[in-house]
Amino acid sequence: MNTNLREELKARKQAYVQDEIIAAAARLFAERGIRAVTIDDIASSLGYTKSVVYYYFKNKNQVLWEIFNRIHEAWWADMQAIMEEDTPPDRKLAALIRKHALNVMDRTEWTAIYFRDQSELTEAQQASVIERKRDFDRNFRDTYAKGVAAGLFKDIPPAIVTSGIIGMCNQAHAWFKPGKGLPAATIADHFTDIALSGCLR
Amino acid sequence: MNTNLREELKARKQAYVQDEIIAAAARLFAERGIRAVTIDDIASSLGYTKSVVYYYFKNKNQVLWEIFNRIHEAWWADMQAIMEEDTPPDRKLAALIRKHALNVMDRTEWTAIYFRDQSELTEAQQASVIERKRDFDRNFRDTYAKGVAAGLFKDIPPAIVTSGIIGMCNQAHAWFKPGKGLPAATIADHFTDIALSGCLR
Repeated sequence: MNTNLREELKARKQAYVQDEIIAAAARLFAERGIRAVTIDDIASSLGYTKSVVYYYFKNKNQVLWEIFNRIHEAWWADMQAIMEEDTPPDRKLAALIRKHALNVMDRTEWTAIYFRDQSELTEAQQASVIERKRDFDRNFRDTYAKGVAAGLFKDIPPAIVTSGIIGMCNQAHAWFKPGKGLPAATIADHFTDIALSGCLR
Repeated sequence: MNTNLREELKARKQAYVQDEIIAAAARLFAERGIRAVTIDDIASSLGYTKSVVYYYFKNKNQVLWEIFNRIHEAWWADMQAIMEEDTPPDRKLAALIRKHALNVMDRTEWTAIYFRDQSELTEAQQASVIERKRDFDRNFRDTYAKGVAAGLFKDIPPAIVTSGIIGMCNQAHAWFKPGKGLPAATIADHFTDIALSGCLR
């Protein structure tokens, strides 16, 4: 086995363990609340000693912050792909709504933490979350504003419309249960239908 | 001063102090998180000793529970009034949406606690909140289902539509700032417009 391959396998294993730790932490945080969970709890839920977790993360805050980062990166990449498409504002808004609803329902434990536990982050981290949220909201707002300018959408302040629509999607983290009731894709389609036809002139 | 009048004045004063304590507690809970607030903090924010608070409430949980009860009672009374009106489903749904949006924005500190801190209640209290929420949602759902039957609304599962609409209103607790931006009444009107026209066939 040459050095490169060995390095690659090691890196892959480390990424896998890191993913495992974050997923286990998210489950425990969602279940018991962040303050009630220790690094020890996270480690032992995976059959590890806490030194394994400390090899990857400095402390509990770093684990929590990584959950926030990964959600942001996934959502932002999806959003960028939609924003770059050459589509009219109504198609673009529909795609943004549908994708955001799906993303919220995709990992309800993670999104529950994302919406509920921002106050557990450091001040610098919270400031960064607010900035990211501003960028995220701006894409929704700009798309709506373009639709108003094109005569497609009702002339309602974009910030109000998009806060309402994003809120509709976000709250799904609190009631959507995977495997129970309608599938996420159907719910996302209905949400998109209601919101979009509610916006059209 | 006769005994009745004296009793009445005493009761009125007690109700006033109780209101004062609950309002102060809601402010502190919303600001610092429930676990970080003591009965002492609540008392001293009003210039009282903690024995005054203990005269009215057994413990912090009782104060929190009273916040949940008062929100429920206010929302439920408003909802009952709308349900009893002899109006067609589209008018009734519009009234339900508008009133709920207004109620959420009316006391953002209280509603932030209501949506965020159910897990701080006892199990019996949580069960009662779930039951009340079920009754609340049922009125929305039944109104939507009647609108579908009357050929007014799109044939989408009522639970999905109403979860989306209620979610849109609920999330306003997280971003609405009284005195900044548009007034609550204007926002409630826009939300009602978007949601209702999104539901109409």
